Amino acid sequence: MAASLGVCRLHFRSLGGLDRFCLGLEPQTQRRCTSTIPAIKTPTGSKTADFVKKSKTFQAIQEERREQAERSVLISCPAKFSEKKFLDFFSKHGTVNKHFFYNSFGAYAVVEFSNKESIASLKESTGIPAVDHEAAVPFKSRLLSLKWPGIQSSNYPTPNFKEQSPPNIGDISNLLLQKHSVDEQLRCLTETLQLTEENISLRFLVCSLLGDIAGAYFPECIIRPFGSTVNSFGKLGCDVDMILDLDGIYARSQKKGSGLSLEYQVKTGPSERAVTQSILSVVGKCVDQFGPGCVGVQNILQARCPIVRFAHQPSGFQCDLTANNKVAMKSSELLFLYGHLDPRVRHLVFSVRCWARAHSITSSIPGAWITNFSLTVMVVFFLQQRSPAMLPTLDRLKELAGPSDKCVIEGNDCTIVSDLSKIALQKNTDTLEKLLQEFFEFYGNFPFNKASINIRKGKEQSKPEAAALHIQNPFEATLNVSKNVNAAQLERFVKLCQESAWLFQQKENLEPGSTQSNGSVSPWGFAALLAPSVASGTGVKSRRKKKTEPASSRIKNLLDSLKIKGGETVAKKGSANSSR
Amino acid sequence: MAASLGVCRLHFRSLGGLDRFCLGLEPQTQRRCTSTIPAIKTPTGSKTADFVKKSKTFQAIQEERREQAERSVLISCPAKFSEKKFLDFFSKHGTVNKHFFYNSFGAYAVVEFSNKESIASLKESTGIPAVDHEAAVPFKSRLLSLKWPGIQSSNYPTPNFKEQSPPNIGDISNLLLQKHSVDEQLRCLTETLQLTEENISLRFLVCSLLGDIAGAYFPECIIRPFGSTVNSFGKLGCDVDMILDLDGIYARSQKKGSGLSLEYQVKTGPSERAVTQSILSVVGKCVDQFGPGCVGVQNILQARCPIVRFAHQPSGFQCDLTANNKVAMKSSELLFLYGHLDPRVRHLVFSVRCWARAHSITSSIPGAWITNFSLTVMVVFFLQQRSPAMLPTLDRLKELAGPSDKCVIEGNDCTIVSDLSKIALQKNTDTLEKLLQEFFEFYGNFPFNKASINIRKGKEQSKPEAAALHIQNPFEATLNVSKNVNAAQLERFVKLCQESAWLFQQKENLEPGSTQSNGSVSPWGFAALLAPSVASGTGVKSRRKKKTEPASSRIKNLLDSLKIKGGETVAKKGSANSSR
Repeated sequence: MAASLGVCRLHFRSLGGLDRFCLGLEPQTQRRCTSTIPAIKTPTGSKTADFVKKSKTFQAIQEERREQAERSVLISCPAKFSEKKFLDFFSKHGTVNKHFFYNSFGAYAVVEFSNKESIASLKESTGIPAVDHEAAVPFKSRLLSLKWPGIQSSNYPTPNFKEQSPPNIGDISNLLLQKHSVDEQLRCLTETLQLTEENISLRFLVCSLLGDIAGAYFPECIIRPFGSTVNSFGKLGCDVDMILDLDGIYARSQKKGSGLSLEYQVKTGPSERAVTQSILSVVGKCVDQFGPGCVGVQNILQARCPIVRFAHQPSGFQCDLTANNKVAMKSSELLFLYGHLDPRVRHLVFSVRCWARAHSITSSIPGAWITNFSLTVMVVFFLQQRSPAMLPTLDRLKELAGPSDKCVIEGNDCTIVSDLSKIALQKNTDTLEKLLQEFFEFYGNFPFNKASINIRKGKEQSKPEAAALHIQNPFEATLNVSKNVNAAQLERFVKLCQESAWLFQQKENLEPGSTQSNGSVSPWGFAALLAPSVASGTGVKSRRKKKTEPASSRIKNLLDSLKIKGGETVAKKGSANSSR
Repeated sequence: MAASLGVCRLHFRSLGGLDRFCLGLEPQTQRRCTSTIPAIKTPTGSKTADFVKKSKTFQAIQEERREQAERSVLISCPAKFSEKKFLDFFSKHGTVNKHFFYNSFGAYAVVEFSNKESIASLKESTGIPAVDHEAAVPFKSRLLSLKWPGIQSSNYPTPNFKEQSPPNIGDISNLLLQKHSVDEQLRCLTETLQLTEENISLRFLVCSLLGDIAGAYFPECIIRPFGSTVNSFGKLGCDVDMILDLDGIYARSQKKGSGLSLEYQVKTGPSERAVTQSILSVVGKCVDQFGPGCVGVQNILQARCPIVRFAHQPSGFQCDLTANNKVAMKSSELLFLYGHLDPRVRHLVFSVRCWARAHSITSSIPGAWITNFSLTVMVVFFLQQRSPAMLPTLDRLKELAGPSDKCVIEGNDCTIVSDLSKIALQKNTDTLEKLLQEFFEFYGNFPFNKASINIRKGKEQSKPEAAALHIQNPFEATLNVSKNVNAAQLERFVKLCQESAWLFQQKENLEPGSTQSNGSVSPWGFAALLAPSVASGTGVKSRRKKKTEPASSRIKNLLDSLKIKGGETVAKKGSANSSR
C-alpha cells in the first residue's frame, strides 16, 4: 500500500488516457491510494466485459448498447443512502433493468429502464433547480440530481461503487508478483486494465447524452463511440472517441416520380469539410453553453479531422467528437474482430501497450511517438507471421465477407466479414510467454529500413516511402499509419524490444521471484519488463552499470525507494495498512 | 406612374422599417414602380386585418395565430404554375385550410393545414437537395422548395401574389389626392399601410420557424412576436420583433413532497442576463449556421436588451430576437387595447407616424430621434385630453381588470383589463381632421420644458428629471421612454407641429385640390403635410420664401420636378403608361 501511493504519483500521468482529463485527478488518485481497502485488487465486483459474444456481429453489439443507453439516466447521488429506497423511487417510473453506482467528483448512478417511456415519466417529475445568486440555463438533459430529504443518516451503508479508473502501476506490479506464471500475469493484466461492462455502459450513455444535444437539430443523427471504447482493446480511463453520424438524415425515401416534389431549403457550404466544421462548431458551442457537466470545451476545427474536445465531469471521461470519420469506425470493427478471434490477441496487445507506456514509447501528447493503434497493428502483423499463423490476413477477411458486408468508403474497399463464425483458425498453441518473448525478438530484428508492415497481405512489403516506420493503413493503402514516428523514436522502440527480449532470455526472470525479508517479492516476469530502462532514457544508471546488474535488482531498488516515500505519506494519514 | 418611380426612389429609405433590411430592396421596388398595373392601388386583393375581434382577448388572438403558424409551411415556388395542381399536391398530405402566394426574392407560398400531422407527412416525402460543388447542412425545417417537373409552361397564369411591402410615398400621395375629405384620406392611409391578414400570418410563421430552432434545446419555449406585429399599429415592411419566452420550461409541476426528488443538473451563469446572453448567442449561431434563408445574423448581446438580429430572406423580414422582455409584450397589449377601443386611434397614429417619417422626425437608425412608440403614447395622451376624453387612462384600465388579469413584472404592477367589453367609452364625435389638427396644435404648444406626458394618470405631471422630452414609461414609472431625444430633435418636432397646424388652418388646404392642365391634382389635405419643410431641414427654400408661397405650391413644384425625372426613366423602359 505504501509503495502504491508513491508509484501512483510518479507514474499515473504516463499510464492512462485520463491524464489528458483537464480537471485534475488528485481526488480519485488519493481515494484509491489511501483507501483502507487492500490496495491490490481488480476493480471491485465488476463483471468482466463479455468480449466473446461470437454469435453477435460488431454492429449488433453496438446497436444493443446504444439502445440500452437511450433508456438510461445518469444520477448524481448523496455519498451514503439506502439502495433500496433509491430503487423504490426509480421503480415508480418503470422497471429498472440494471443499475450501478460509481464515484467521480461525487457519487453517481447509472439507471437503465426497460422502456424508454420511463425516461419521459422521470423527466415529468423533475424540476429546474433554484440556484442562489445565479441563474440556470434550463436545458433538460438526462443528467439529474437526486435530492435526499432530511439529515443524511450515517447508518446507511456506502453503496457498492464500481471502479471506473485503472489501478495505478504500483498496484498492478504488486498484483502481478502474486501470480505463478508469465501467462497468468498477462491474463491478469488484461482483466485489470480492460473496460468493465459498467464502464462501457457509461461510455455509451455519455454518447447518448451528447446525442440529445446534437440530435436537437439533426433528429436522425447518432453519436457513436469508436476506437478504444468498442475495439476490445480499450483500457479503463481511456478517452471516449465519438463520431457524429449524420447518415440517417439522408436515408429517408425520396420519391423520384414525374410529378411535383419537395426539397428542404438548406444552407450550403463550399465543401463537406466546411459543413462538418460548421455543424461541429454549433454542437461544440451548445455543449459549452448548455451541456451540464461538460467543461473545458475546445473546438479544434482546423485539424485534418476537425474535432470538439471536452471533459464530461460526471463520468470522468475526456471526449473527442468528430464527424463522418467512417474509416475510423471500420478500423474499430477490424480490431474488434481480431480481438475476438483468439483471447491471446487481447492479452498480448494489453501487455505490449502497458510495456510501451511504461517506457514512454507511447504518449498521450501528439508527437513522434508510436500510437496505440500502430502497436496493435504490429501485434496483429506479428501474429499473422506465426507458424501456424494465429490471425488471418485482411485480404482473407475480405474474401470471407458476405454480400451485406460490402463496404466502400471514399473509394476504398473496406469490406470485411462480419460473421466471426465463418473464420476458421489454424491450430496454434503458443503460450503467451512465448508470444511476448518472440514479439520482442521479431521487432528487435525487423528490417524497418526497407520493409513495410502490411496486415492486408500478412507479409512484409517494400517500403513505398522514406518514413522511419511504415505501417500500411489497413483501409487506405496509400497511407502510413505511423508517418509521425521519427528515427529516434523507432530506435528507442527497437532497443527496448532487444532489451526486453534479452531480459526474458534470462530464465530466472520468468520464475516467481523470491520473498524478501521485508515481505516484498522480487520483480519477475512481466513486472520485470516495466522497470526503467537505459534505452527508454528513463533509467538512472549507465548502460555499462546496467549490464553488470540484473534488471530484477534495479527494479527492487526502485520499488524500495518508492516505498519509503509512500510510507511517509501513508503514515501522515494514519493508515494502519502500510505494507512495510 | 411616372412620378411614382421618382418619389419612390427618393423617399423609400425614409419610409419603411424595411430599409433596415440589409439585402437591398431594388427588385421589389422596381417591381412595384415599373409594373403596368396602375401604380395607385391598395395591396391587391388582401383582406384587411380584422382588428376588431372584440370578443377575443389579445392573448387569445395571439395564441390562435401561433397555433395556425405551427400548422403552416413556407414554400418556394416557380414564377408561374397551376394553382390547382399546387393545391392538389398539398392536399395529398391533408386538408389545406388557407394558402396565399407572394413575391420576395422569388415566388413563395404559405400553406396552412388543418392538422399539424400534415406537416409530418409532408416532411416525410421531402428530400435533402443534392447541391453541385457544395455541401448541404441537412437541417430539416418547414421552409421547402417545390420542384415543378418539365419545362415551365408559359400558359400557366401568374398566381395572385399578395403584396407584402408598403406602397411608396408617391403612390400614397396620388392615392390620397383622389379622396374627397381629410377623414377619407386618413382612413385610406391606414388601410394602405397597415399589416394585412396574410402579412401577419407570415410574421407568425417566421416566428414559428425560428421557434423550431430555439425549441430544439428548449422544447417548451415559444418565440412570440411583440411590438408592431401585434400592437395593431404595425405597418407593412416593419421589422418583426420577437421574444424568446422560456416561461413554459419552468411551468412543470414540481412535486415538493417529503420524499426523494429529482432536479435537472444545469449549467449556471452569474446572472439572468448572462444566461439570456448565452442562450441567445447559441440561438444566433444556429440561425447563422443552419437556418435556411436567414442571413446577416448579428449577435448584439452587450446591448441593454441583448438581441440577435437577422434578415429572413424568404419573407423579406428584418427580425430582432430578444428574451424575457415581458414588459415589452405587455406594452404591445396595451397599445393593442387602445387601438381597438376606437378606430380613430389607429387612423390618427398611422397619420402621425407617416407624417413624422416623411419629415425625418423618426428614423430607423438608433439616435436622438423620437421613436414610433413615443409618438403613439403621445397620440394616446392627446386623446385622453379630449373633452369628452376619447381614451381611458391606464389607471382606469387597471381598475377594470379582473383577478385573472393580475400581472406583476419585476416588481412593476402591469395589470390591465383584457376584456375590452368592460370598457365604457365617453361619446366623442370629433372628426379625424379635427383630431389631427388639434394634435398638432396641442404639441405645438405643449410645455415640454416642465411637463411630463403620463398616460397612466392621463394628465401632465411635473418633469422628474432634466430630459428634453419626458414620457413616463407606462409600466415602469421611473423610466422615461424618450430619454434618447435631445433638445434639437424636440425643437424640430415642435416646429413641424406648429407648421402643420398652420397649414391645416389654411382652409384651402383642407379641400380637394384643383386638377392641373397636365391632369395632376394639386396637393391638399394630408398629402400637403408630407411635403418637405423648413423646420425639418429637408426643405430647399428659406423660411422667408416659404411664408410667401403656399405649401400647396411648393409641393406641386416638387412633384412636377419628380415627374420629369420619373418620366425619363419610364420612357427608357418603353412603358406606355406614363402619366405625362
